[in-house]
Amino acid sequence: MRYSLMKKALIGRPLKTRELGEQKLSKLKALAILSSDALSSVAYGPEQVLIVLSTIGLVAFWYSIPIGVGVLVLLTALILSYRQIIHAYPRGGGAYIVSRSNLGENAGLIAGGSLLVDYILTVAVSVSAGTDALTSAFPELHQHNVIIACLLVVLITILNLRGVTESASVLAYPVYLFVVALLILSAVGLWKITTGQVPADLHPTIGTAVPGISLFLLLRAFSSGCSALTGVEAVSNAVPNFKEPAAKNAANTLVMMGVILAILFSGIMFLAYWFGIVPKAEETVVSQIASAVFGRNFMYYFIQGATALILVLAANTGFSAFPLLAVNLATDKYIPRMFLIRGDRLGYSNGIVTLGIMSIILIVAFSGQTEQLIPLYAVGVFIPFTLSQSGMIVKWVNEKPSGWAYKLSVNLVGALISLTVVIIFFTTKFTQVWPVLIFLPIIIWMFHRIKNHYEATGEQLRIKPGEEALQFKGNVVIVPVAGITKVVENSLNYAQLVGDTVIAVYVAFDRESEKQMEEKWKKWKPNIRLVTLQSQYRSLMRPLSRFIDLAAEKANGNDRTLTVLIPQFITKKRWQDILHNQSSLRLRVYLLYQKNVIVTTVPYRFKK
Amino acid sequence: MRYSLMKKALIGRPLKTRELGEQKLSKLKALAILSSDALSSVAYGPEQVLIVLSTIGLVAFWYSIPIGVGVLVLLTALILSYRQIIHAYPRGGGAYIVSRSNLGENAGLIAGGSLLVDYILTVAVSVSAGTDALTSAFPELHQHNVIIACLLVVLITILNLRGVTESASVLAYPVYLFVVALLILSAVGLWKITTGQVPADLHPTIGTAVPGISLFLLLRAFSSGCSALTGVEAVSNAVPNFKEPAAKNAANTLVMMGVILAILFSGIMFLAYWFGIVPKAEETVVSQIASAVFGRNFMYYFIQGATALILVLAANTGFSAFPLLAVNLATDKYIPRMFLIRGDRLGYSNGIVTLGIMSIILIVAFSGQTEQLIPLYAVGVFIPFTLSQSGMIVKWVNEKPSGWAYKLSVNLVGALISLTVVIIFFTTKFTQVWPVLIFLPIIIWMFHRIKNHYEATGEQLRIKPGEEALQFKGNVVIVPVAGITKVVENSLNYAQLVGDTVIAVYVAFDRESEKQMEEKWKKWKPNIRLVTLQSQYRSLMRPLSRFIDLAAEKANGNDRTLTVLIPQFITKKRWQDILHNQSSLRLRVYLLYQKNVIVTTVPYRFKK
Repeated sequence: MRYSLMKKALIGRPLKTRELGEQKLSKLKALAILSSDALSSVAYGPEQVLIVLSTIGLVAFWYSIPIGVGVLVLLTALILSYRQIIHAYPRGGGAYIVSRSNLGENAGLIAGGSLLVDYILTVAVSVSAGTDALTSAFPELHQHNVIIACLLVVLITILNLRGVTESASVLAYPVYLFVVALLILSAVGLWKITTGQVPADLHPTIGTAVPGISLFLLLRAFSSGCSALTGVEAVSNAVPNFKEPAAKNAANTLVMMGVILAILFSGIMFLAYWFGIVPKAEETVVSQIASAVFGRNFMYYFIQGATALILVLAANTGFSAFPLLAVNLATDKYIPRMFLIRGDRLGYSNGIVTLGIMSIILIVAFSGQTEQLIPLYAVGVFIPFTLSQSGMIVKWVNEKPSGWAYKLSVNLVGALISLTVVIIFFTTKFTQVWPVLIFLPIIIWMFHRIKNHYEATGEQLRIKPGEEALQFKGNVVIVPVAGITKVVENSLNYAQLVGDTVIAVYVAFDRESEKQMEEKWKKWKPNIRLVTLQSQYRSLMRPLSRFIDLAAEKANGNDRTLTVLIPQFITKKRWQDILHNQSSLRLRVYLLYQKNVIVTTVPYRFKK
Repeated sequence: MRYSLMKKALIGRPLKTRELGEQKLSKLKALAILSSDALSSVAYGPEQVLIVLSTIGLVAFWYSIPIGVGVLVLLTALILSYRQIIHAYPRGGGAYIVSRSNLGENAGLIAGGSLLVDYILTVAVSVSAGTDALTSAFPELHQHNVIIACLLVVLITILNLRGVTESASVLAYPVYLFVVALLILSAVGLWKITTGQVPADLHPTIGTAVPGISLFLLLRAFSSGCSALTGVEAVSNAVPNFKEPAAKNAANTLVMMGVILAILFSGIMFLAYWFGIVPKAEETVVSQIASAVFGRNFMYYFIQGATALILVLAANTGFSAFPLLAVNLATDKYIPRMFLIRGDRLGYSNGIVTLGIMSIILIVAFSGQTEQLIPLYAVGVFIPFTLSQSGMIVKWVNEKPSGWAYKLSVNLVGALISLTVVIIFFTTKFTQVWPVLIFLPIIIWMFHRIKNHYEATGEQLRIKPGEEALQFKGNVVIVPVAGITKVVENSLNYAQLVGDTVIAVYVAFDRESEKQMEEKWKKWKPNIRLVTLQSQYRSLMRPLSRFIDLAAEKANGNDRTLTVLIPQFITKKRWQDILHNQSSLRLRVYLLYQKNVIVTTVPYRFKK
């Protein structure tokens, strides 16, 4: 009872199933809840590009502009492609569903498995990064990094268990704040540039010849920049969470998110180039830009704070997407059925809790230093990107709807760029992304094992026409007795009611008690057969189990069932349980799991 | 299975009940197993006397001789008294039984409760002291004191679980070693004194006037010396463990132990006086005597080693006595019945394990510094001493057997001295012994509560003549169903076999599935009633429990029982359990504990 009260306080009152509609997302809320991951990537994506270019020299920095354009092209391709997916799969079309229905089971499982792991990585990476930002501001908290990160995950988990709308209300403001902060930064930066307040010689001219530059390096820089695109698939997974018309609202939200992402990314990319920002280990690029535009005044801290906050909240995207993907996989029987169950507040609580626990494990295992997981995480995103867009190509080719040539080309461009990014990741960052090659096969093998089990189960449970179920002709009831008491009398009455043959069994630890019992029994219940068993080792289980084996064999031979009746004391107070031998519980589990007999528990409730 | 193998390796093969006789103790083994506590007290008893006398000055040390004589008188009284008890209570006559049968229930419980706590203290104190002795020899181990002490307790626990004889074999040698070592020490010391190798002016002459001495102080010193007598009651508790004739063998063993204890105590006491030993914080009195007699040669280390060893083994006395006392208390229903059960090796394993755990808790709680518990421990011994000897006085007065005047006087002297010791403890060491006044009442209150519960239970279970048990006229069986499968078919067949009314219950989460189920059911089992329940909160439990309440009320009104049939999947492999909703288990516990209906579990075993 106390547990349920605590649960209520943390999570809120249970909701009825028909209140489901009320929990659906409006476009503006959806934008907040589903885009924090994608938008927060702007905080580190541009920096990743500059880090790669800086290995050549400052003169190479002008390449960030064409690379940025490349990323924007990919972004456009992804947004257009996912818009098509949303309309084609209005009941939720993540990479898993698109790949599975167009490319086959294993392609779907690769996409689904990648994303499942990826959402866990999202949470761990984002929360750790946000915690780092927080503890950079308050260095005395730095030693408690891991605990703070774990508490943040717990907090986000609870918010999500409360339900999708309420968590959106809380989480919407920081996202808007971040967008506003970066828009102001870009606008003020541009205004300063156009009004000539920024020297023009801070950056190399576009087109300057760069010695030592290679296509390989440029592609590597491009792939690094692509980490700014992680998270854009979240909307397409979450279509069923939108208010009706769900598909249209989701598609519009996706475009809105794409536009905002493009503006923020372009702004940061351009300002970084124009101000000649050089990536430093101890200060982020965004922080340097803000410093250059505003100096270290209130606006600087506002931008830094909003960035830190959105990084933590990016984790929330994982919490929105993971349970929905889990529902898809569980519906297809690849993961346990429990992920299908809606909790008290209508969220898929098992998915939410699993994600929270897994990411806390990751954070603890890496002591909060999860930045090294970023490439793993990015590659885990681009594998499903590639698969889902390839799936769309197959779909267009097969179905050939009106205007399919345009649709095909959109997805083709997206698929090719995504595939290139994956290949570049594997060739240039193999030391960081190899675990994918281990974990993915294991996960897919597990998916198949689970599915096989469910299918075998279904097969065994299915009633085949013409196959007659075994009709029992009688019921043999065995009642283990420890003495002559009301409980035994009670049990025997019940046994005679439900069985045609009743056998009482008494386990004696010595000859004397055996004799005594037999004599007493003869006087008490002469019409019920008593079997006494000797136990040399003072064990109830062993002689009883041997006897039950024999009885079961005999009963089955006569087409009769065997039931063992176990009386169970129900004490009035919890502490009194220790005063009673818990052998009835042990006996029940043993008989059920080892012996396959039917077990009936007859409760005997103490009044005192 | 792996658990049982590990158990076998640690504890040995299970023994049959009739092998019990073989486990009985011979006198020599009994001496070793039951006297280590009493004999090891010699290592600190004399020192306690000198510590008190040293508060006056060295000149007072001659009082150790009359005090020692006083302790010997008390020892003689105790041995004679316990000899009488052994013969009077051949089935085991600890202070608990003697006090209870002669002085009434609460006196018995005070004695029993004191001893129960005392045996835990014995183990904790002895093992800690022994560990200190050990780590004094190897100082680099000192920081691991607590862990070493706990491991020693675990080791002794395992030895005792292996059974009484085997542990005696292992534990006998150190006791003999200790006796031999101290006998050699005393003999060589005396030889050196008589041959004039020791100066005669090391000690004050007996009878020297001592300014500032008081009876109070002398009594305090005497009571301190009485800590050397802890453990003498062990034999009388363990009479049933002896070979036949048990009482005679036990009585002889007790006398043997008394004589050895008297010799060792006198030897140490006298040598300490003659050599003018002054107690020091950093070196024990025994160590100083050994140094003075032998110098720091091999013999010195032999004596120190034997002392350290016997201190650890003194804990074993607790392990012999505690389970037997627990059996007596459990037989009288003051503590849980589980203490009556003999384990695989015929020892009372629950008592042994409980003692081990409790003493480990004490050691950890006091960080191995359990020396401060010695006065508590001593007072906890002398309370039952007093009670058992008072009990014997009452017995002699009531029964007046031949020679009862002599017997009465023996016990009277013992009782008076013991009582005096208790009073002195409470007046002079109140700050150390007050917890007794808190714990004893709590323990006795618990004893009474447990007894009350057992008696209420027995009362409720007893079949009173003339009182007819309720005869049921029929059985209503409710079968919760989740769909139309073989499991359900199987359950329904069984339900029809054992019940006259069968109701299938389906909990629907929405209207659509409710309708579907009703239609399918009508085609499948038109003759079995299906009740569908709506669950707005997606909970199985709530609607089901409401329905069962109604059904139970109706069934009881018609003198019929209500049985709920729960199908339980038994998966082939353990990991597959997670793939199935464990709602059947939760439902069973809920119905049994909250609703008091009969629950039948029908196992359905998967073949794949």
